[in-house]
Amino acid sequence: MGSVWFLQFVVVFGVVGFFCDGLVVSGSYVKYNTSSGIVEGKLNVHLVPHSHDDVGWLKTVDQYYVGANNSIQGACVENVLDSVVESLRRDPNRKFVFAEMAFFQRWWTEQSFETQEQVRKLVDDGRLEFINGGWCMHDEATCHYIDMIDQTTLGHSYIKKQFNKVPRAGWQIDPFGHSAVQAYLLSAEVGFESVHFARIDYQDRAKRKGDKSLEVIWRGSKTFGSSSQIFTNAFPVHYSPPNGFHFEVNDDFVPVQDNSLLYGYNVETRVQNFVDAANAQANVTRTNHIMWTMGDDFQYQYADSWFKQMDKLIHYVNKDGRVNALYSTPSLYTDAKYAANETWPLKTDDYFPYADSQNAYWTGFFTSRAALKGYVRILGGYYLAARQLEFLVGNRSKGPNTFSLGDALGILQHHDAVTGTAKQHTTNDYAKRLFIGASESEIVVNSALTCLAKKKSGGQCEVQESTFSQCRLLNISYCPPTEEDITQGKSLIVVAYNSLGWRRTDVVRIPVNDAHLVVKDSSGNTIEAQFVSLDNVTRNIRKFYTQAYLGKQPEEAPKYWLHFQVSVPPLGWNTYFISKGDNNVKRRHELASETKSSQDDTIEIGPGDLKMSFSSTSGQLKRMYNSKTGVDVPIQQTYLWYGSSTGDADSQASGAYIFRPNGSPPTVVSRSVPLEVIRGDLVDEIHQEFDSWIYQVTRLYKDKEHAEIEFTIGPIPTDDSLGKEVITRLTANMATDKVFYTDSNGRDFLKRVRDYREDWPLTVTQPVAGNYYPLNLGIFAVDKKSELSVLVDRATGGASIADGQIELMLHRRMIADDGRGVGEALDETVCIESTCQGLTVRGNYYVSINQAGAGAQWRRTTGQEIYSPLLLAFTHEKFEDWIASYTTTSSSFEPNYSLPLNVALITLQVLDDGSVLLRLAHLYEAGEDPEYSTLAKVELKKLFSSKTIKEVKEMSLTANQEKSRIKRKSWKVEGDKGKVEPTPVKGGPLNNSTLVVELGPMEIRTFLLKF
Amino acid sequence: MGSVWFLQFVVVFGVVGFFCDGLVVSGSYVKYNTSSGIVEGKLNVHLVPHSHDDVGWLKTVDQYYVGANNSIQGACVENVLDSVVESLRRDPNRKFVFAEMAFFQRWWTEQSFETQEQVRKLVDDGRLEFINGGWCMHDEATCHYIDMIDQTTLGHSYIKKQFNKVPRAGWQIDPFGHSAVQAYLLSAEVGFESVHFARIDYQDRAKRKGDKSLEVIWRGSKTFGSSSQIFTNAFPVHYSPPNGFHFEVNDDFVPVQDNSLLYGYNVETRVQNFVDAANAQANVTRTNHIMWTMGDDFQYQYADSWFKQMDKLIHYVNKDGRVNALYSTPSLYTDAKYAANETWPLKTDDYFPYADSQNAYWTGFFTSRAALKGYVRILGGYYLAARQLEFLVGNRSKGPNTFSLGDALGILQHHDAVTGTAKQHTTNDYAKRLFIGASESEIVVNSALTCLAKKKSGGQCEVQESTFSQCRLLNISYCPPTEEDITQGKSLIVVAYNSLGWRRTDVVRIPVNDAHLVVKDSSGNTIEAQFVSLDNVTRNIRKFYTQAYLGKQPEEAPKYWLHFQVSVPPLGWNTYFISKGDNNVKRRHELASETKSSQDDTIEIGPGDLKMSFSSTSGQLKRMYNSKTGVDVPIQQTYLWYGSSTGDADSQASGAYIFRPNGSPPTVVSRSVPLEVIRGDLVDEIHQEFDSWIYQVTRLYKDKEHAEIEFTIGPIPTDDSLGKEVITRLTANMATDKVFYTDSNGRDFLKRVRDYREDWPLTVTQPVAGNYYPLNLGIFAVDKKSELSVLVDRATGGASIADGQIELMLHRRMIADDGRGVGEALDETVCIESTCQGLTVRGNYYVSINQAGAGAQWRRTTGQEIYSPLLLAFTHEKFEDWIASYTTTSSSFEPNYSLPLNVALITLQVLDDGSVLLRLAHLYEAGEDPEYSTLAKVELKKLFSSKTIKEVKEMSLTANQEKSRIKRKSWKVEGDKGKVEPTPVKGGPLNNSTLVVELGPMEIRTFLLKF
Repeated sequence: MGSVWFLQFVVVFGVVGFFCDGLVVSGSYVKYNTSSGIVEGKLNVHLVPHSHDDVGWLKTVDQYYVGANNSIQGACVENVLDSVVESLRRDPNRKFVFAEMAFFQRWWTEQSFETQEQVRKLVDDGRLEFINGGWCMHDEATCHYIDMIDQTTLGHSYIKKQFNKVPRAGWQIDPFGHSAVQAYLLSAEVGFESVHFARIDYQDRAKRKGDKSLEVIWRGSKTFGSSSQIFTNAFPVHYSPPNGFHFEVNDDFVPVQDNSLLYGYNVETRVQNFVDAANAQANVTRTNHIMWTMGDDFQYQYADSWFKQMDKLIHYVNKDGRVNALYSTPSLYTDAKYAANETWPLKTDDYFPYADSQNAYWTGFFTSRAALKGYVRILGGYYLAARQLEFLVGNRSKGPNTFSLGDALGILQHHDAVTGTAKQHTTNDYAKRLFIGASESEIVVNSALTCLAKKKSGGQCEVQESTFSQCRLLNISYCPPTEEDITQGKSLIVVAYNSLGWRRTDVVRIPVNDAHLVVKDSSGNTIEAQFVSLDNVTRNIRKFYTQAYLGKQPEEAPKYWLHFQVSVPPLGWNTYFISKGDNNVKRRHELASETKSSQDDTIEIGPGDLKMSFSSTSGQLKRMYNSKTGVDVPIQQTYLWYGSSTGDADSQASGAYIFRPNGSPPTVVSRSVPLEVIRGDLVDEIHQEFDSWIYQVTRLYKDKEHAEIEFTIGPIPTDDSLGKEVITRLTANMATDKVFYTDSNGRDFLKRVRDYREDWPLTVTQPVAGNYYPLNLGIFAVDKKSELSVLVDRATGGASIADGQIELMLHRRMIADDGRGVGEALDETVCIESTCQGLTVRGNYYVSINQAGAGAQWRRTTGQEIYSPLLLAFTHEKFEDWIASYTTTSSSFEPNYSLPLNVALITLQVLDDGSVLLRLAHLYEAGEDPEYSTLAKVELKKLFSSKTIKEVKEMSLTANQEKSRIKRKSWKVEGDKGKVEPTPVKGGPLNNSTLVVELGPMEIRTFLLKF
Repeated sequence: MGSVWFLQFVVVFGVVGFFCDGLVVSGSYVKYNTSSGIVEGKLNVHLVPHSHDDVGWLKTVDQYYVGANNSIQGACVENVLDSVVESLRRDPNRKFVFAEMAFFQRWWTEQSFETQEQVRKLVDDGRLEFINGGWCMHDEATCHYIDMIDQTTLGHSYIKKQFNKVPRAGWQIDPFGHSAVQAYLLSAEVGFESVHFARIDYQDRAKRKGDKSLEVIWRGSKTFGSSSQIFTNAFPVHYSPPNGFHFEVNDDFVPVQDNSLLYGYNVETRVQNFVDAANAQANVTRTNHIMWTMGDDFQYQYADSWFKQMDKLIHYVNKDGRVNALYSTPSLYTDAKYAANETWPLKTDDYFPYADSQNAYWTGFFTSRAALKGYVRILGGYYLAARQLEFLVGNRSKGPNTFSLGDALGILQHHDAVTGTAKQHTTNDYAKRLFIGASESEIVVNSALTCLAKKKSGGQCEVQESTFSQCRLLNISYCPPTEEDITQGKSLIVVAYNSLGWRRTDVVRIPVNDAHLVVKDSSGNTIEAQFVSLDNVTRNIRKFYTQAYLGKQPEEAPKYWLHFQVSVPPLGWNTYFISKGDNNVKRRHELASETKSSQDDTIEIGPGDLKMSFSSTSGQLKRMYNSKTGVDVPIQQTYLWYGSSTGDADSQASGAYIFRPNGSPPTVVSRSVPLEVIRGDLVDEIHQEFDSWIYQVTRLYKDKEHAEIEFTIGPIPTDDSLGKEVITRLTANMATDKVFYTDSNGRDFLKRVRDYREDWPLTVTQPVAGNYYPLNLGIFAVDKKSELSVLVDRATGGASIADGQIELMLHRRMIADDGRGVGEALDETVCIESTCQGLTVRGNYYVSINQAGAGAQWRRTTGQEIYSPLLLAFTHEKFEDWIASYTTTSSSFEPNYSLPLNVALITLQVLDDGSVLLRLAHLYEAGEDPEYSTLAKVELKKLFSSKTIKEVKEMSLTANQEKSRIKRKSWKVEGDKGKVEPTPVKGGPLNNSTLVVELGPMEIRTFLLKF
């Protein structure tokens, strides 16, 4: 027989180590040494294991938690927490940081006592560290500071309660730009020692890498300066690990293969990769400490996949000895940075807007999903009021409460929620959460109002069956209790609750079907009422949206808006009675109607000090004039839209995140707008239809110094295959010299200069999108004579693209996705069965003119009123019966006591343990207003007229530690040496007998009270 | 101020349970009750958690183990084992079964002592159960039974050693069809109580689902019948769970969401899904026990993802109560089936061929990668011999050993390895492993031969520096020690080792450069030598492949093949000396050369009994004739190729797995083939070039009763964009009436009937592919007069597509993938730098003719000789010196003792503990041969002439338990009642004093010996 051999596969190798005893593939157990701490004199690579878990984005928060809908994204936060805990238990040196308490809370409640004990141990040992620790990782552009505080407090109180821990580090790794308020308030005042994030402008990043200024001391507050500064770490690339050190289960990475008896041994190569990546980062970092963010979106589905690799890297890299690798956390990293005694660059203001490349300014999300943003904002104020009532009624027994709304709002502050950058189905889930939360809180509020108003026979107020109802769709004239017929002998009873610390007067507007109704105040005196016929636009919206959202064909639309003026004491209520009048009395509303014909070209309206003049021919606004202050500003206002880039040229489309106009100048919707003028004693209105899909009502109230402009925009037409981003633009004859001011999360105003950045020489690539800033409170511009201020009712993008101009982006609809992961065009539609149309958005903005330097009072007071509108509850009852059983008006303050106008009560909430959380906020910055930028005083005793305060403790902002326990590091800052900073005015310690709280400008003081 | 509301997102829900105390999202810990055992009277759903971990496929075995190359497939077996162990520890009711010991062994050696202890506990408790337990899950079509036994023994001994456990269940879930030998030998004789698999013919499955015969009692051996039967469970769909119950981390499934406080609660729905799926399966299953295979390829990357869902399902399904769910294993399932006292259908023969749909016959892999298959087979025999030498030399101290070859061969038996269905890079890795294993074993062999032959001064044989070398590329005439010049005074010394239990004579063929060499036997007598000039085809292959595989430009090709006859005692060696002769002696090889011219049309060759006649005009074989037996068969032989379907019509292409000809009749390569005739005293050769890429040498040896046909095929041309599947076809003038016989794994011969299946009425859709069967030993056909037998040198597909025909598929090359996952066309190429060409395969098949009923002796003896060729080692030394220092010939048996010709020694191996594993195999089936299908006897004492046997224990086939401990269940089988089966002839118990082993037909007896 011949020799039978094979042909293929004889390959010559240089194989080592395959001759061994017994088993070729033997290997052996290696106990990895991961115990390394910091090593002086070496480059220390801090490995910070983390999982970035969006509280909703491509999937809903609960889908992310349980791991449903994985066809969209393989992500299950339950897996993350389950497996991380196991991994941490396996090696005491391993560490992990976790941020999003909305997820942690879901997980924690499902764990066994044993697991909870194990986790408590891990937390106590510092192996599992909560960082950031809010309910979510809130956005910094589209959130109001009160909502940010609330959601952070929700998380921090959970951590405190379960673990008695106080998070030490801010971890805003993903939000799309970073705010001054985040720095000084939500970080420094919270007690954080550092804040860390990934997203800063690409030009800024390049410059900072060059001069090693990614890490800075950030003083976000002009008022507070260094007293509220924070060590800030902007990552050199992203919040993922350096290339090749990404170890998610099933992902493609090169495992450290240290079993020389298997093929593919690579320890030396991997160590070299590690050292190379570390040295590259060291080249752009001060001190010999660098941080590697060992994680990414929803990573650690199987935590051991990461930890096994990191264990090996730490072991072999440290054995190699060129650099030192260790498990770390942002807090430990910050300690090391501090210990290095380095001098750091100074950073002021904020990190907006954010661009990740030259045509990708993330300024679209300032406005994306304007309706959702409006919903969030209105419920923020409602939540504030509902918690007050929950406190006032003093009852926390079983039954409905405000937690579900707080939970929903906490989730909605997430940087893919209120930002409008989640998928549509997730957005629907967000809305559902808000709706459910609001529904439960509505029961709380109705019950509390009944309870409080009911004349007591003494003793505690028990939970009440309430006959009150509230109207969530008032804005589209849908309100069954006001629309229905008032039966003979009964009244429509309107209770208005004022959650502000000041008495407030306002004009209430409700839909009715009878123009002969009579309105009486709580004393039974008839007060002025103004009837205005319902316009057709509102009528049509009402019809479509009540059917789309309530699922039922609504009743015939009401005929009129009834207006009347109310006055409500601080933290109190007042009652108004509406009953049938005499049909023969001449109807007031007819008097109010007026044709637009006029002798000359100008129509002037305004029942109060503020007047607005319009051209009767073009319908254009021409001038605003305040007869009291004498301020007189020639001004036009119109609607325009930017065509959205579809990204055909370079694949960067405008989308949910990114605002990228297509390069054409914005299209003016209409240069000539017919106007309908309606005049009355309480309010004058100008109705204008700019196009079939843009309707505007301008309202000037008798007692207000501003114009309220109600816009109704939509469906934005896209049948021309062009996305549109709709703005309103005010063009005033003012020399503003590129400068304008926008707020930071509704609090500080920051100076903006068009086409300019303080921190680096800006290369302008997007002259419009690159000059947009986020608004939560408003925007204003100043010249030598006047100020033009605009306040908004929700998060909105704003800019001043030319001197004298202010523009707000109010609504956006697009046909392309902008390639940042969401994978859907921002193309909101509303459907009745299969008939869909683009979403219509209705909202308000507010315009005021003031003498130069005098606008702050209007902005601050009105801003607070916008955030906290009157809360209205309705019922039907006989006037006499009501008067006999209920207190018609009352304040929970001592009689006639009111907060100073520069102080707002931003939190009053009873906690689980019965103690009460109180937050007072000074509303003015240092130097903002001569009268109000001063030390203010609040007498706590007078706030709680019916209760005795037993104990007051001043707390950190999120109330998780006594304020006195916050320790601040003394960082060395470039340029500080020898310079003396003016000391900010701050309130002194609380006097325990007088209980008078002092607040300096911008101060927010948080107290825990026991009664 | 007007009422400022939002528009979007007010949706009306039917939401329950959102009013709760404290936290809306509270949920609570649920302790899932997973403790359910079997419940009588209910449908019991046995959840069997498993991970199917291919020992190489899309990635290499080590890449799978460490999780490298995840871009190809996210798969890391380390993760599976790590996370499964953690999951099992978390709940004592959870179970998991694991099969592939090649992976487990890699993992186990890397674990800490603590982990090992934990795992031992899990195994002891039956929570982690090893099933199958071989090194891999071997293929059943392309593996030789000896290799199957070896690889299973490798795994079983590992389990035994580490855990003292014996696997109870066969788990061949993925192999592509199932063999009789697997049933009766590798299952029943191993001691398994059941075997489980997924892949059976789609028509068979449909029929079995209809009459509930998926589960059967399988009697795979005609010889043994019920005494080696096995309960066999063919799954109704696949080895994955029912649709929707697949819970791999990050995969898209619907988690059981039982927290009513989160959105998406679905317990009732999921329970209903479960009950529905269970009932559907119950409808096709006997008894109220069904098995759900809870796993899939490389699943359980994060085991908790599965176990969490299964825990919940067991808990809620059992709470529901309609069916009973439990964690189980195949063993427990089998126990339950047995306890049900059901009567089962009988199954005989095997489950080949496998088709998963009408045009998808998995009969391509019988031949795919013919070179790899050849490499595996040749090393199987080499491994057998090397272990004998390792035993004989009695030295297991440090240094090279045969484990790495055993490991490699164990891996290669995997059902995507030797099958040829792995990706090319994985196949390269397989070849590398074989090469490395063979290299180490070569050192063992060289050293052992030196050691054994060296004349001892008494005492132990120490490890020897050996001067021997071996030639792995002899088949392409590359052999440096024989090619090199024999220096004056020295001889080329050839030691031939015979691993058979019989003396063997063979013609050795080695390449030399001198036609005047003289060959002497061990006594110094000159023996006949025949020189044949090297042909150009071999010359060219040698040049290309030595450069491609050895990386070096080889020396000038040797000029001649030197043939000489050797005779070697059983388990012994003989030595031959080749030295320079007298150049003036007429060169024998010139005599051997002959032109093909002949007087008449017929050329007859054959120096011995067997003659072959060829047409001198067409070159075609015409007739075979045996002058001793008088058998005379008119026969043609030629090469053809099937064009491969590219799947254009229905996307089912021919590929690595699937043989699907394109529908055209096979193309005859050449109808007229010039022939070159070479005659000699030892061998006559016919050389024929059928085409530039098909070369054939037919060899008839003086002392052999068969023709050896060496084919050299390749590169198969595909420049016509047509894949080709090359066959050789023998067409005999025989009336075979559709019947032919093919072996099962090289052991039993099974009767095959064209276009027919025993178990169901076959719908013929693929008249060629559907009639192919796997060959490992060979194929034969019979008519009333004669038998035509063909034996193969490697796994090969074979068929008889027309009466009197036998065809073998020898090589395949394609341009399309067949869509079963591998994602590559089977298009093997070999490259020198960037110059690539299709792979050329060289191999042999052997043809014999016999009188009807008399072929078994040739097939059985020759089959064993093919599996165990002579092992040749070469060195250069002075004849006299060698004679003085070395024993030139010897047997390890007692002098003149030899095994009976119906018994083969298939294992002789020293184990780690010094005990010796001996396996003896009777080679004949009952009734196969009147002379040899009888009880045979082996005298153990005479096998070990120089050693004293202290103890002998008869073991189960894989030697992991004493044979007497195998318990067999008495299953009730349909049709058995009252029928008396003939009792198979089996050897009696070993007589402890005589130590004579009896073996009945087909018996394999396994012994552990101590000396």
